[in-house]
Amino acid sequence: MEEIFRDKLVREIIRKTRTIWAIGHAMSLMGWDLETYMPRKAISDRSTAFEELSALQRKLILDPELVRLVEKAEENTDGMNDYEKGVVRVVSRTIRIAKSLPEELVRREAKITSQATVVWAEAKKKNSYEEFKPYLREIIGIVKEKAEKLGYEEHPYDALLDLYEEGLRTKDVEAVFSELVPETRRILRTIERRGFYPQEHELEKVEYRKSDAAKLLEKLLDDLEWPWERGRLDVSPHPFTVNMGTDDVRITVRYEGVDVKRAVYALIHEYGHALYELQIDPSLKYTPLQGGASLGVHESQSRFWENILGRSPWAVKWLKNRMDSYLGYTAKFSLVEVYRYVNTVRPSLIRVDADEVTYNLHIYLRFILEKMMLEETINVDELPVEWDNKMEELLGVRPKNYSEGVLQDIHWSHGSIGYFPTYTLGNLISAAIKTKITQEKPGILENFSLKEVREWLRDNIHKWGKTYEPKKLLELKLGYRLSPKPLVRYLEWKYIELPNKLEEILV
Amino acid sequence: MEEIFRDKLVREIIRKTRTIWAIGHAMSLMGWDLETYMPRKAISDRSTAFEELSALQRKLILDPELVRLVEKAEENTDGMNDYEKGVVRVVSRTIRIAKSLPEELVRREAKITSQATVVWAEAKKKNSYEEFKPYLREIIGIVKEKAEKLGYEEHPYDALLDLYEEGLRTKDVEAVFSELVPETRRILRTIERRGFYPQEHELEKVEYRKSDAAKLLEKLLDDLEWPWERGRLDVSPHPFTVNMGTDDVRITVRYEGVDVKRAVYALIHEYGHALYELQIDPSLKYTPLQGGASLGVHESQSRFWENILGRSPWAVKWLKNRMDSYLGYTAKFSLVEVYRYVNTVRPSLIRVDADEVTYNLHIYLRFILEKMMLEETINVDELPVEWDNKMEELLGVRPKNYSEGVLQDIHWSHGSIGYFPTYTLGNLISAAIKTKITQEKPGILENFSLKEVREWLRDNIHKWGKTYEPKKLLELKLGYRLSPKPLVRYLEWKYIELPNKLEEILV
Repeated sequence: MEEIFRDKLVREIIRKTRTIWAIGHAMSLMGWDLETYMPRKAISDRSTAFEELSALQRKLILDPELVRLVEKAEENTDGMNDYEKGVVRVVSRTIRIAKSLPEELVRREAKITSQATVVWAEAKKKNSYEEFKPYLREIIGIVKEKAEKLGYEEHPYDALLDLYEEGLRTKDVEAVFSELVPETRRILRTIERRGFYPQEHELEKVEYRKSDAAKLLEKLLDDLEWPWERGRLDVSPHPFTVNMGTDDVRITVRYEGVDVKRAVYALIHEYGHALYELQIDPSLKYTPLQGGASLGVHESQSRFWENILGRSPWAVKWLKNRMDSYLGYTAKFSLVEVYRYVNTVRPSLIRVDADEVTYNLHIYLRFILEKMMLEETINVDELPVEWDNKMEELLGVRPKNYSEGVLQDIHWSHGSIGYFPTYTLGNLISAAIKTKITQEKPGILENFSLKEVREWLRDNIHKWGKTYEPKKLLELKLGYRLSPKPLVRYLEWKYIELPNKLEEILV
Repeated sequence: MEEIFRDKLVREIIRKTRTIWAIGHAMSLMGWDLETYMPRKAISDRSTAFEELSALQRKLILDPELVRLVEKAEENTDGMNDYEKGVVRVVSRTIRIAKSLPEELVRREAKITSQATVVWAEAKKKNSYEEFKPYLREIIGIVKEKAEKLGYEEHPYDALLDLYEEGLRTKDVEAVFSELVPETRRILRTIERRGFYPQEHELEKVEYRKSDAAKLLEKLLDDLEWPWERGRLDVSPHPFTVNMGTDDVRITVRYEGVDVKRAVYALIHEYGHALYELQIDPSLKYTPLQGGASLGVHESQSRFWENILGRSPWAVKWLKNRMDSYLGYTAKFSLVEVYRYVNTVRPSLIRVDADEVTYNLHIYLRFILEKMMLEETINVDELPVEWDNKMEELLGVRPKNYSEGVLQDIHWSHGSIGYFPTYTLGNLISAAIKTKITQEKPGILENFSLKEVREWLRDNIHKWGKTYEPKKLLELKLGYRLSPKPLVRYLEWKYIELPNKLEEILV
């Protein structure tokens, strides 16, 4: 165990939680394999194993000996360093959540959500909200129960938010959106009026050879100095990142055969997630502090790389160069055209396809609907119409069917209510990082100094793992408190100011 | 839980051991991944996870509640069916072994063997027995301790044999070899005198394109009706089979780029192992009975497919046809020539390259040396010379260095003393299967009715899993008691009688 953990109790806690870490390691690999190489009919063996190991993990978290150690450690944390305090905080939080949720409720949730995920996929395919509705009704009931068991000060939604983002409250999210939504709509109107950022680009229609794109993406990872001896790139139906440890981080992408920017930006997005895990202090290996601070902070990393860096004009120079070599068909387009291609802005129906301007409006829609369902202001019968109305109000587009409306996301079938706001949180933090990094290192983005960027992110965010509560990490390292201002400022700069300077930059 | 388990105590035991099954599932996947796709530097994360999960598995096996249930079940098994008795026997055996070996000894063994495996690989590369010797000395010491802890009636080697092959005794192995060794040497002399089976074949020198061989092997698996939705074929440094459940069985091969029969027969060998797991009764899923009866019985399956079926003239017709299509270069050779190519017989130094005639002489060599080391008739200083002398005596060839002599196998570095005899056991049983199946289904091999063969193996061996002790399974289903007679008879038939009939068969 590294020297940074000197407290005897903390060392005992780390020793005891190492088994929980190992089960997590195994389950991460099982999840990765499930999406990449697992034979199709192995699913029921895999599900059984997941179920058993989850129950075992819960049992080990609630092990009376561990609980006693943590309670004792909590009694006096005065002499502890930040790492030691972090261990106590993280394990205590995990125990508190596990203790609050009775096993019966956990099993009921696991059962209904695993059924609901299958039903949802079928319902989405058949555009049948009716099929999914009874499952959603039951899931809403279960998450309400969960909120009551977990406890909250002001709003049951607080309890759910906190599950995904430690310390995040409903009123914080409301405060953000009350400013972010009108500002976004204002910027969007300006973009539409000026017409520089297109709604569609002809390059979106171009088909590519999957094997060419695979070589392109490998080259991009090489350029990003991807440590192949500590990571992998594979193919799966939905791109994701998973880590089995700080020396085993794997990302996936998919190749659709058309509109290559989708694969390219999926790669850069997942790279951002992966880099976080790869740059966590090795001293935190196998401890409860190994891993990202929260979903929001994690998403800030993927968004920073994907959007703020990856869709910047300086990145486009790099990307066009590589696309010209590996795909060829971009060669006859100018740098400005490729920049416009990767920066289309269009109010659309589908969240996962949304650009960085309209994306948060999609999240806001889900946030208010989730809150209303919890408050019982609306029920699952009213949900689809509510969805369509609010969608039209916010984005000016109206779904023609459930599949492109209320049924589009998998999250609710998983029982993940309170999860969506972490996406917007990620966008907010990514802009706060831009503000801070460009203050400290002027020209870093313009010079596209990726190594310097990686080091800065490592020292200010990554290496700390879960040592600090996310809010505290952001205050301490970025001087940032939840606010939409940096994001709004970034969007204004990029979408209103930058077009005038592009001819200079993109030469 | 399936209806076959009705006893209340047994059902409770199965319920409790399901977690142990799940950890096994995870560890199998971790092992597969380690050999196939894991990034190189992930090894220490993976080792830590293995160590933690092994300790956890041990803890769950020794869970006092489980021990109590099993002890209670053992008190009265009269009313139980064979499956229920099997569960009690298997779990009781697992508990007995875990109880006998103190955790300190298990950890010491794990530590020294994981170091020894690395040292062995290095020592083999450098031809330096001196480097490996201190590790081997310590390992021999540890396995002696293990034998004492496990207990035995006649010989400490009994305790080690039993670890790998339930119920196998030193005197059984001695009795087999006392007949098998002279008979093998007699047959070998006849083969050498007659000259039909060549020592070398020119096809062994031919290089192939790895991508062509990969397509060939996929086609062969198709021909074998490999259930791709329940299995995989991958590449790894050493071919192996692993199962994560009866619906997730994976095999690996390697392509060396020369002498394609090596890849082809590795595939068929692993297929034999895999088929066993795939055909276990689905009612035994997630229970202690899921899995092969023993290492020896498992090896009988791989050997039956690889040698008895796979190197038969009827298989050669199939294989040559496919090789002609996928590789081309075999087309100008006659069927008899391809048959001779896949059936070379040569006394050689390397066990893994040995043919089916000389193979057991390699095992006998290891068996007597292991026994002598346990008895302290020889020590690790004397071992290499002893190896070379016995090798020359048995096979007429003498190693020129340690790498092709005493250092050739990985097993001892793993602490696997008592393991080698299961290979010969596999060969013996495969011949007993040939005797039985051709009695019951005359012409089945000649007609190459693979579906019928699979069904027969399923009904007589596979589906039972670990229900019966291996000895009992063989008596019950094959009417076979350990004896070299069927194997000797098979070798006589194949190597002395068959050549005269080949011209008729191979047209």
